[in-house]
Amino acid sequence: MEDRRLRIGVAGLGRAFSLMLPTFLRDPRVQLVAACDPREEARRQFAADFDARTYADVLQLADDPNVEVVYVASPHQFHAQHTEIAAAKGKHVLVEKPMALDAADCERMIAACRAANVHLIVGHCHSFDTPYLRARELIREGDFGAVKMIQAVNYTDYLYRPRRPEELMTAEGGGAVFSQAAHQVDIVRLLAGSRAVRLRASVGRWDPARPTEGAYSALIWFENGAYASLSYNGYGHFNSDEWTGWIGEMGDQTSPDAYGNARRRLATLASSNDEAKLKAAGTYGGSAYKPPCASADEPPRFHQHFGPVIVSCERADLRPLPDSIVVYGDRRETLPLSRPAVPRAEVIDELYGAVVEGRPPLHDGEWAKGTLEICLAILKSSEAGADVLL
Amino acid sequence: MEDRRLRIGVAGLGRAFSLMLPTFLRDPRVQLVAACDPREEARRQFAADFDARTYADVLQLADDPNVEVVYVASPHQFHAQHTEIAAAKGKHVLVEKPMALDAADCERMIAACRAANVHLIVGHCHSFDTPYLRARELIREGDFGAVKMIQAVNYTDYLYRPRRPEELMTAEGGGAVFSQAAHQVDIVRLLAGSRAVRLRASVGRWDPARPTEGAYSALIWFENGAYASLSYNGYGHFNSDEWTGWIGEMGDQTSPDAYGNARRRLATLASSNDEAKLKAAGTYGGSAYKPPCASADEPPRFHQHFGPVIVSCERADLRPLPDSIVVYGDRRETLPLSRPAVPRAEVIDELYGAVVEGRPPLHDGEWAKGTLEICLAILKSSEAGADVLL
Ligand SMILES: NC(=O)c1ccc[n+]([C@@H]2O[C@H](COP(=O)([O-])OP(=O)(O)OC[C@H]3O[C@@H](n4cnc5c(N)ncnc54)[C@H](O)[C@@H]3O)[C@@H](O)[C@H]2O)c1
Ligand SMILES: NC(=O)c1ccc[n+]([C@@H]2O[C@H](COP(=O)([O-])OP(=O)(O)OC[C@H]3O[C@@H](n4cnc5c(N)ncnc54)[C@H](O)[C@@H]3O)[C@@H](O)[C@H]2O)c1
Repeated sequence: MEDRRLRIGVAGLGRAFSLMLPTFLRDPRVQLVAACDPREEARRQFAADFDARTYADVLQLADDPNVEVVYVASPHQFHAQHTEIAAAKGKHVLVEKPMALDAADCERMIAACRAANVHLIVGHCHSFDTPYLRARELIREGDFGAVKMIQAVNYTDYLYRPRRPEELMTAEGGGAVFSQAAHQVDIVRLLAGSRAVRLRASVGRWDPARPTEGAYSALIWFENGAYASLSYNGYGHFNSDEWTGWIGEMGDQTSPDAYGNARRRLATLASSNDEAKLKAAGTYGGSAYKPPCASADEPPRFHQHFGPVIVSCERADLRPLPDSIVVYGDRRETLPLSRPAVPRAEVIDELYGAVVEGRPPLHDGEWAKGTLEICLAILKSSEAGADVLL
Repeated sequence: MEDRRLRIGVAGLGRAFSLMLPTFLRDPRVQLVAACDPREEARRQFAADFDARTYADVLQLADDPNVEVVYVASPHQFHAQHTEIAAAKGKHVLVEKPMALDAADCERMIAACRAANVHLIVGHCHSFDTPYLRARELIREGDFGAVKMIQAVNYTDYLYRPRRPEELMTAEGGGAVFSQAAHQVDIVRLLAGSRAVRLRASVGRWDPARPTEGAYSALIWFENGAYASLSYNGYGHFNSDEWTGWIGEMGDQTSPDAYGNARRRLATLASSNDEAKLKAAGTYGGSAYKPPCASADEPPRFHQHFGPVIVSCERADLRPLPDSIVVYGDRRETLPLSRPAVPRAEVIDELYGAVVEGRPPLHDGEWAKGTLEICLAILKSSEAGADVLL
């Protein structure tokens, strides 16, 4: 085993990048060596923060001989193209969820990485969160019997966070199904431990000012006989953090008192152009950007998560929580999880594991394509009013 | 408006009756005047408690001229027959949920009551609970816009409470769909405020020792464009009272420390015969029966409920809780509910309202038949692996 830092080049210095930045800053297995972004202010900040090369274009980034891994964190619609460009230059690829916008693009990405003999890992995605990975291990140990039913519920203000125009258009990959089911479906698949074979879903689209899916519910059936019921509602009303001890998606302490903030902030904006500017201003390099606290002596207290999840096995229910797994078996038992040293270190575990240590990643292209197919099936089932076979 | 006591005769002095007894004891609009039950010990206790007539058979009860209303609280399979017998003698009928076991029986019951010009009300059912009725009123006032999505989740130990053998056989009306969906579906229909048109469901049946449905999930679509996602799990592991402030279904304070009690108690029994005996012993007239505290100066603190429910309207989510409705609109607001004076007084509101005050009941035969049809469709959809049109 080598003991070295993976050299990462970032394609897209936006919100996804800013959420991964604490990981890149704190995890000793990686370092940031270059980035590309059309936004000049982002490039300027990156160059200053990391004394690293920046480019306006992904082609130049992929050409940089110092880059080993390209982290594709550009908007959905560029994931396929940017992955192909990186792979063609022999770079490993870590690409943000959703992998792409259709199955054909996923296949091209998989083929490009296979042909170049580089790894393709899709993430961050909340199915990397330790509570779900640990619950999966516990289930696989077999003591609780087969998985029979999974319930996953998440109520957030997703739809009212500042967005680029295309994030509000389903045809361009916008909406809760592409962006949020990508997390929830991935978690549920991982816990079911079996291939999804059939799905029925309904989507909710009820704010004409944000005319994409803000909500969905789905039933998914798995080959091993398990079924899952998923619901997501991003309309910013009820907040299911209430059912996770007011620990938010990012493992942070949230508060009932922040109620309505997202909608209120949005209401101050005049146009979708202002909104895209607000999004950019709050992100890396922007005028309102707040850098993460990089001090290594303040590790996060809780793991990240994606809302309440209950896995019912034959002999126990398991609840993955931000600090523990609660096992409701013959007795109720709380299995504490060790506090994360670095947020989202699980992504680096898989990336470093694959590239440096030769361990096959869980979240590879084939896996993520399966999740995208389910997301597309949610849209299709709701539209067609019938089951979709997978 | 007359001011008098409705004279009630009870058919079936079991658990359902014992749960309604605090209502009958405390609500000044009703009095218990007679009862029938094949169990001699139940008849003996009833005669002693109420100085009232008791009969071994429902025919005799229906013949009692002092009885105005027959409360049919016998096992499911007798509901249709007992309703017809009571109606034929000109008695109004309050019949427990589920109304019956098939739609044809429901129609016979409706026809019998119509022909006799008596009222038919189906309940108690948790859709009588004030939090749901009040949420329904708030929605109908129109400020929140149309209902778009309803989420209803309930995790209980239903399957491990002591049962009669037929309660564990679906073909005889056993299982969570007949007994528990009867509540949850009724609540969801009431909140949706529209006719259900289509349904897809999956049931869970995974304890071979209790070979009926212990769990189900369903998607239901309504004529007005709303959809609902329902999940019920009665396998006695996770307990969703955790999400209702540890207030239980009966409006009582419950405790996480009671975890596993139902399963443990059952494990001490040798046979299904012992189990049926345990059920009978704990019920009215039985050796382990505990009478309710009848003192009028101790009204219940909380309303009854049937697990977490979130109704998403265009402009707000509503959460009916045991002591309030939380409205998540532009602001979050808690609308307190006045403390119940008598538990389940809502059932008497409808019964007295119909019989004495001439107000059409909400939970009439046609309404309850609609709920039963959805319950049957849950079983059918799961079996057929496809949508059921309603
Ligand atoms: N895993 C997570 O928690 C998470 C969170 C947010 C976003 N994401 C994903 O990350 C991706 C980006 O979303 P975002 O919210 O960060 O958007 P964003 O708008 O905040 O960031 C996108 C960035 O990419 C840049 N960009 C645009 N075109 C580019 C190009 N051709 N080449 C290089 N950079 C380009 C933009 O200037 C911007 O800086 C999406 O696919 C989204 O699903 C994941
Ligand atoms: N609304 C609620 O909260 C609630 C709660 C429990 C039960 N129920 C309903 O009440 C009904 C009875 O269930 P239970 O749990 O009380 O069962 P149970 O076994 O506790 O009680 C049934 C009673 O009916 C008697 N009985 C049997 N055959 C009879 C007959 N031919 N004539 C008269 N009485 C007869 C039994 O001796 C027993 O006392 C079911 O339909 C059930 O769904 C409703």
